[in-house]
Amino acid sequence: MSFEYTYRHRVTFSETDMAGIVHFSNFFRYLEMAEHAFFRSLGHSVHPRDEKVRSGWPRVKAHCEFLRPVRFEDEIDIRILVSEKTSKSLSYLGSVSVVDDSPVLCAIGGITTVRIRFNPEDGRMRATDIPSEIDNKISVAPPELCEGLLNHLKRR
Amino acid sequence: MSFEYTYRHRVTFSETDMAGIVHFSNFFRYLEMAEHAFFRSLGHSVHPRDEKVRSGWPRVKAHCEFLRPVRFEDEIDIRILVSEKTSKSLSYLGSVSVVDDSPVLCAIGGITTVRIRFNPEDGRMRATDIPSEIDNKISVAPPELCEGLLNHLKRR
Amino acid sequence: MSFEYTYRHRVTFSETDMAGIVHFSNFFRYLEMAEHAFFRSLGHSVHPRDEKVRSGWPRVKAHCEFLRPVRFEDEIDIRILVSEKTSKSLSYLGSVSVVDDSPVLCAIGGITTVRIRFNPEDGRMRATDIPSEIDNKISVAPPELCEGLLNHLKRR
Amino acid sequence: MSFEYTYRHRVTFSETDMAGIVHFSNFFRYLEMAEHAFFRSLGHSVHPRDEKVRSGWPRVKAHCEFLRPVRFEDEIDIRILVSEKTSKSLSYLGSVSVVDDSPVLCAIGGITTVRIRFNPEDGRMRATDIPSEIDNKISVAPPELCEGLLNHLKRR
Repeated sequence: MSFEYTYRHRVTFSETDMAGIVHFSNFFRYLEMAEHAFFRSLGHSVHPRDEKVRSGWPRVKAHCEFLRPVRFEDEIDIRILVSEKTSKSLSYLGSVSVVDDSPVLCAIGGITTVRIRFNPEDGRMRATDIPSEIDNKISVAPPELCEGLLNHLKRR
Repeated sequence: MSFEYTYRHRVTFSETDMAGIVHFSNFFRYLEMAEHAFFRSLGHSVHPRDEKVRSGWPRVKAHCEFLRPVRFEDEIDIRILVSEKTSKSLSYLGSVSVVDDSPVLCAIGGITTVRIRFNPEDGRMRATDIPSEIDNKISVAPPELCEGLLNHLKRR
Repeated sequence: MSFEYTYRHRVTFSETDMAGIVHFSNFFRYLEMAEHAFFRSLGHSVHPRDEKVRSGWPRVKAHCEFLRPVRFEDEIDIRILVSEKTSKSLSYLGSVSVVDDSPVLCAIGGITTVRIRFNPEDGRMRATDIPSEIDNKISVAPPELCEGLLNHLKRR
Repeated sequence: MSFEYTYRHRVTFSETDMAGIVHFSNFFRYLEMAEHAFFRSLGHSVHPRDEKVRSGWPRVKAHCEFLRPVRFEDEIDIRILVSEKTSKSLSYLGSVSVVDDSPVLCAIGGITTVRIRFNPEDGRMRATDIPSEIDNKISVAPPELCEGLLNHLKRR
């Protein structure tokens, strides 16, 4: 069972803004990129192509604290931990660090996402149980790992 | 019958990049915003919510020439003209100008889009005739209007 | 003195994702659009063009809870309240509602932003006092307004 | 001397739109990602961090033809060729193909970009010669390579 994943990304030009740094909305995309790569690492996709009844993972919550700016062409490691798990939802805690001999922690954030199915009749989403083939592969990270991340915020 | 539309937009912060100007990919979003507002002005949507068989308007071509930079908080007029029309496709020619006592022309571009339907079986797109209730409302702009725009590029 | 602003926006096609709804990262852009419009309403810009020493308002925190999906072409009201103010920072609490006879509350979020100046020598940002001409125009919203918003989350 | 580069990218969720495919504006970001990786492969950056006089590479033209849709989690190869070179500008021709045993060509496009410097007085951009340390490393691709790409469009 897995509870963490680290995804490497090189910051693109269009992710920056006129302040010369990565626009803050992109840190949420970064967390998502790591979450989706985590699913791929387990042999799954958050949006499989061949589903009879379409499913999804909309977000119910997202938050981020920005400690240091990230810049164009920075190589970053986005690390996510599974911080909570219910029958229908997953919560992640994540960090964004610039890759370096001593990595520079730049942001800490999190996402809570719910498993849904789209009702084929009216297109509406309804929360549904995480399928067992996914559920069986994901566990919650040891609390000390999550606390380790959150301690960076307390020290602030 | 209509052949033109002008959509006003205020440049947002996240549309800029670290060069301090609007990222060039956003000009294609701008042209699209005017195209979709044009459809709304005719009482239609490019993606109606209640369709039995889902339709769409994917692009087959897009181009743009950038004459002057556009900046944060600039108010811009995006004007589009219908430059070509077939039974299954529409082409637009458009301009982006900063609103001012004497407007400043910043970009000229175009999009060609094809009417498609998604095959409910395999999800694939297939080109299909523009429905008559849309077709009847759209005509091609007088050639001198399109030439007027293109002349700005020739003079360059 | 002002403590709130409401900005109206029509959801664009490129703000949606393959789940058919607005991508969650865009809600942070929406809150920012309202914040910047609030500054304009006070006669200021978060990034004035003619500054000798460049200033900015990077984010230190952002969070959002997503109550209902927002869709293509929805007209939305993004309302922000000033929820906290220090000599160097401003915090906003905001909501996103679909405009309707009875508006539909779709998201509640917040941003904390710090006034900085870029050191012309090394380009680094340093927190600095909010200039008095801005400070004098902004007050904290009455606590009952902020609590009114937050109560929607508690009820969840 | 170099005249081509191929950059691999995995399509992210936020690059898709409600039609279930990559939004067309992102193909211009893809071409740019390959262009910037090409510069890095030569030991340069389009926006070096330590410049005394800031330089840049704004676009004067961009175009793209879309042959097939690209979808979430597709792995794509973005290949660019230097198609033209003047003392102040570079033109690229590029393709986007889904990686597969037999790769699927999905788009062909191009970008023309001009070397500029920002006037420190008024912040305006002025076209300037490509520095020799960059110029010396870049050559125009053999015409048959460019024609090979363009032939895909003619056959259409």
